[in-house]
Amino acid sequence: MSFIYLDNNSTTPIDPEVLEEVQRVSLTAFGNPGSRHAAGRKARQVLEDSREAIASMLGALPSEVVFTSGGTEASNLAIKSFTSGRTGSIALPLGEHPATVEVVKHLRPRGLKRVEIRLLPGGQIDQDFAANFPDDLVLVTTLLAHNETGTIQDLTRLADYCQEHRVPMHVDAVQAVGKIPVDFHHLRATTLSIGAHKFYGPRGVGALLVKKECKLLPQLRGGYQESGHRAGTEPVALIAGMALALRKWQLNAAGQQNYLSRLRDHLQSGLQQHCSPAVVNGDQAHRLPNTLNISFPGCDAEALLVALDLAGICCSHGSACASGSSEPSPILLAMGCEAAVYHSAIRFSVGTQNTLQEITHAIQTISEIVRRLRTT
Amino acid sequence: MSFIYLDNNSTTPIDPEVLEEVQRVSLTAFGNPGSRHAAGRKARQVLEDSREAIASMLGALPSEVVFTSGGTEASNLAIKSFTSGRTGSIALPLGEHPATVEVVKHLRPRGLKRVEIRLLPGGQIDQDFAANFPDDLVLVTTLLAHNETGTIQDLTRLADYCQEHRVPMHVDAVQAVGKIPVDFHHLRATTLSIGAHKFYGPRGVGALLVKKECKLLPQLRGGYQESGHRAGTEPVALIAGMALALRKWQLNAAGQQNYLSRLRDHLQSGLQQHCSPAVVNGDQAHRLPNTLNISFPGCDAEALLVALDLAGICCSHGSACASGSSEPSPILLAMGCEAAVYHSAIRFSVGTQNTLQEITHAIQTISEIVRRLRTT
Repeated sequence: MSFIYLDNNSTTPIDPEVLEEVQRVSLTAFGNPGSRHAAGRKARQVLEDSREAIASMLGALPSEVVFTSGGTEASNLAIKSFTSGRTGSIALPLGEHPATVEVVKHLRPRGLKRVEIRLLPGGQIDQDFAANFPDDLVLVTTLLAHNETGTIQDLTRLADYCQEHRVPMHVDAVQAVGKIPVDFHHLRATTLSIGAHKFYGPRGVGALLVKKECKLLPQLRGGYQESGHRAGTEPVALIAGMALALRKWQLNAAGQQNYLSRLRDHLQSGLQQHCSPAVVNGDQAHRLPNTLNISFPGCDAEALLVALDLAGICCSHGSACASGSSEPSPILLAMGCEAAVYHSAIRFSVGTQNTLQEITHAIQTISEIVRRLRTT
Repeated sequence: MSFIYLDNNSTTPIDPEVLEEVQRVSLTAFGNPGSRHAAGRKARQVLEDSREAIASMLGALPSEVVFTSGGTEASNLAIKSFTSGRTGSIALPLGEHPATVEVVKHLRPRGLKRVEIRLLPGGQIDQDFAANFPDDLVLVTTLLAHNETGTIQDLTRLADYCQEHRVPMHVDAVQAVGKIPVDFHHLRATTLSIGAHKFYGPRGVGALLVKKECKLLPQLRGGYQESGHRAGTEPVALIAGMALALRKWQLNAAGQQNYLSRLRDHLQSGLQQHCSPAVVNGDQAHRLPNTLNISFPGCDAEALLVALDLAGICCSHGSACASGSSEPSPILLAMGCEAAVYHSAIRFSVGTQNTLQEITHAIQTISEIVRRLRTT
């Protein structure tokens, strides 16, 4: 590879063993799990084994797992299910991911207004949210870990509130799963979305966990797949790959967490040392181990990204899902960052494939570019 | 493999070369095509090359291709787009696939009634459909080739009508693409759905072709992928695999068509000879080359399927998407088949991986079972 890939929150390269698993299942369990014959049963077996494995690793029941094409579909399914035919308010923190924000925005003309949960300067939810919640609340939706800053939310009080007021809570855990332990029942989420390509799994598959007493409104209609929650022949090989990717993470969760945070911390301290002044955005104590959102006041993030790309460093200044947008990142605005900070913010997200050597090289390259941009 | 797989309309085994392509792209173009760096651009290049290839093979423009998770999502997207916020009638032939029937059914409470297009005894559309069409028609949706009978529809007059009355026409070509030539512009369809796993491509990917002047209503909201028509990170490797699967078909379309029809005709004549009386369902002149829907009056399809499965023959009595249902197949009812025929109908669908030897063996096995069931 001719570049250093530090954009693992955008997508991760698939784990070679996971890729092999996808290949193996594609060849050995190619049947349609809806078919009632030997080939179908074999595929069904792999499908249900994967469902059980994923459920058990995420603290859910197998019957609570609905496979989808990815995190975006999972969050769309949850939000549309809870709001269908209803009017009222949807509460969500400022600066959330487009996969929920855009759905909520689209529901506005149908009589569903957005209520904001404010953020502290470190990106955590302001736990005084309840003062702002109206009586007609129909849904709370929140990220568990932020894709841009890596901030991990403490959802205990939000879950308390939702439980007490019988409001469903959707948790977008796409960026959290496979990086930190996630337990569906423990979180007391009503639904929770995951996407395999964020944790070295295959692209094109994800899941929505759904509390068993909760009824979804299917968004894809057709065959009776996924207990009627989601029509379409299940991509068994991708699902098996997702299960393996999650299992591999679980088997070495602490080791991976250590490795990633070592790389990230090396990057952070290197950049703070060589690119001073550099401002780390977001709470550093409750943060994904792999994520560094850092600003270089005096630089323009846009120019910086172009120069870094030319120098072979892949990173971003926000969500790939929001790319093309030249607006300042909503999450940094919501955290109250100053203009010099949000105009110069870059997200670096390291991955298991990165090496300490790569990071050292990246520090040097980034520092040179930051210095050059600051003097021109 | 310990069974003979004659259920290729349910799903096809992935072509080994296609699987290799998926693997290759997963490793070499793993970036998020929405990312603006080297890794992202590389993925974007593969994505757009695949889009161009697929468009050109299906007689569409690249900008008319919207990638989806499969045929079901594609048909849902089309039908919901054309009916959103409207009331009126949706016309579709009797006995269509659940991926359209269930969407239409679900729209009924929203003021969208279903108008039936009658079928001739051979399964073709009754071309006198217009007499039955109301003034408030908002959509026509139809299969190009039927998944159960293989009947290929002549959609010329339907396209004439739709063009004249400015009614959109959605064509579900999931079962046709990769078996017969399909030309989007030539068909004059407004939208057309395909699914890769029906033509030896990967599971979990498909596309909706959309006429360029036509505006879709996105069903998945989030990032601005697929020109805003469908949010969610594109599964580039699966899309590249789909493109290759289609290319492989196109390079050998006539050869494959010949091979499949030779196998199918061998199976058909063998069964007619050894299982007399056997009734072939559906027009034989306009039929997918690989599909045989055949009844064995005096047998019960359910018992026959169980016995065939035990004997290592994988086949079905309808759509895997409708499996679990013990109702007679709607398409056979719509064709006016007698009870003895529709209660004993089996669908065999051969694939490129089948051999003449397998078919000969299958004929023998099926014949023995049919004879046994008829005498018990």
